[in-house]
Amino acid sequence: MKDNPELKPNERIDHLDSQGIQIIQSSEVFAFSLDAVLLADFVRPNHRRRLQTVDLCAGNGAIALFMHRKLGGKVTAVELQPRLADMAKRSVILNHLQDRYRVLQADVNDIYSYLPKDSADIVTCNPPYFKSLPTSQKNPNHYLALARHELTINLAQVVDKMAGLLKMNGKGYLVHRPERLPEILMELVNHRLQPKRLRFIYPKAGKESNMVLIECIKDGKPGGTIIDPPFIVGDDNGNYTPAVQALLHGVNNGHE
Amino acid sequence: MKDNPELKPNERIDHLDSQGIQIIQSSEVFAFSLDAVLLADFVRPNHRRRLQTVDLCAGNGAIALFMHRKLGGKVTAVELQPRLADMAKRSVILNHLQDRYRVLQADVNDIYSYLPKDSADIVTCNPPYFKSLPTSQKNPNHYLALARHELTINLAQVVDKMAGLLKMNGKGYLVHRPERLPEILMELVNHRLQPKRLRFIYPKAGKESNMVLIECIKDGKPGGTIIDPPFIVGDDNGNYTPAVQALLHGVNNGHE
Repeated sequence: MKDNPELKPNERIDHLDSQGIQIIQSSEVFAFSLDAVLLADFVRPNHRRRLQTVDLCAGNGAIALFMHRKLGGKVTAVELQPRLADMAKRSVILNHLQDRYRVLQADVNDIYSYLPKDSADIVTCNPPYFKSLPTSQKNPNHYLALARHELTINLAQVVDKMAGLLKMNGKGYLVHRPERLPEILMELVNHRLQPKRLRFIYPKAGKESNMVLIECIKDGKPGGTIIDPPFIVGDDNGNYTPAVQALLHGVNNGHE
Repeated sequence: MKDNPELKPNERIDHLDSQGIQIIQSSEVFAFSLDAVLLADFVRPNHRRRLQTVDLCAGNGAIALFMHRKLGGKVTAVELQPRLADMAKRSVILNHLQDRYRVLQADVNDIYSYLPKDSADIVTCNPPYFKSLPTSQKNPNHYLALARHELTINLAQVVDKMAGLLKMNGKGYLVHRPERLPEILMELVNHRLQPKRLRFIYPKAGKESNMVLIECIKDGKPGGTIIDPPFIVGDDNGNYTPAVQALLHGVNNGHE
């Protein structure tokens, strides 16, 4: 693949067949995980032509790209790391989405220099999951450390910017670890984001959840929170469940 | 059964075979539901002989009685309604648990007149689930209305008393509706109770959760919250799952 003009050294093109998306990745820099696929699937479809969507902490643009069919309007992917933002930009071109997508190489903490407050209908985010404590074992790979640890942005800052960008009644979507669920829900509520729907992801039947997806509504009414049916990723033989196969390969090709 | 000296008119004796418990009930006053069985099962066993357990909003004493084998020490069941407290007292005698159990007919809001602060190792509660709004359709049966609606006590008051009764590092257990999950977790955290484990109950596979069980620790460290495997109550034919059968009838008789 080295002769493909889109690719730089050690990059590859992966496919998310279910969404007809090609995406530039690199194991040494960033490759999307199931978390991105699950969050994109969790977002409610909305085909309004004037819809404004922002994906924060966008990495190589996976979540933003995976939503291209379910969302109308414009999508802005915001990523701090230049190397990742560059991959996202080239993936937008690879998928011919330049008219609807743009990639901002920017610090989410400075987002109002680029995007106005109260302007987004939908904001998605797959933030760094782990607190940046001196004792936490950080990834020695700097690219991955920034993506996984709260080095440049923490949960409260992410939630604050998600809330600020959203219009009233706009929807925020977050994927995170259930270990921090009480803290996450409190941050959301304290920033005018009312958690309205949660989906817990379980690695296998009979195991504890290792991921949570949260939908919140800016200035939504408290109460009425829905807990979606449990979503199980793997079966007892270590294979993906049909539900995951469908998300990766498409409904008609779920058992490939 | 009218000639049984334990029983008053329209009362009956039901059994929870899995725990070897007989319990006095009355459809027109109060009968325990699966919620009580599930909460009692969720509580971690602790056989310390000096253990102090309190069950708030105890109804006819179901949760307290269902824990008699898994907990050591003394158990106090607190119930406001005299008719229900009386049923609980007679069930304690029926099960020969007078040496370990006592029933307090008292308002939870006045609990410190009866029990000292910071004295309990475990506090359980199945509180009224529904906000007492003028628009909410209350049960015309006064006994059931008090048990289901926040007429005499609300969530914040229940959590406040749970926190006050518990020793540092004591464990609180609550069953509630997931619709109010963000509010519940915030009340707990704001009252020094750190939610450490949640179990979501689903009426059937593929359905939204309709019940949540929460374990919290007084002055526990934030983080590390565990989401238990999903617990499914019914199968596609409308029968209880083997997991529920085991809770009702015992592990060796799960398919009766």
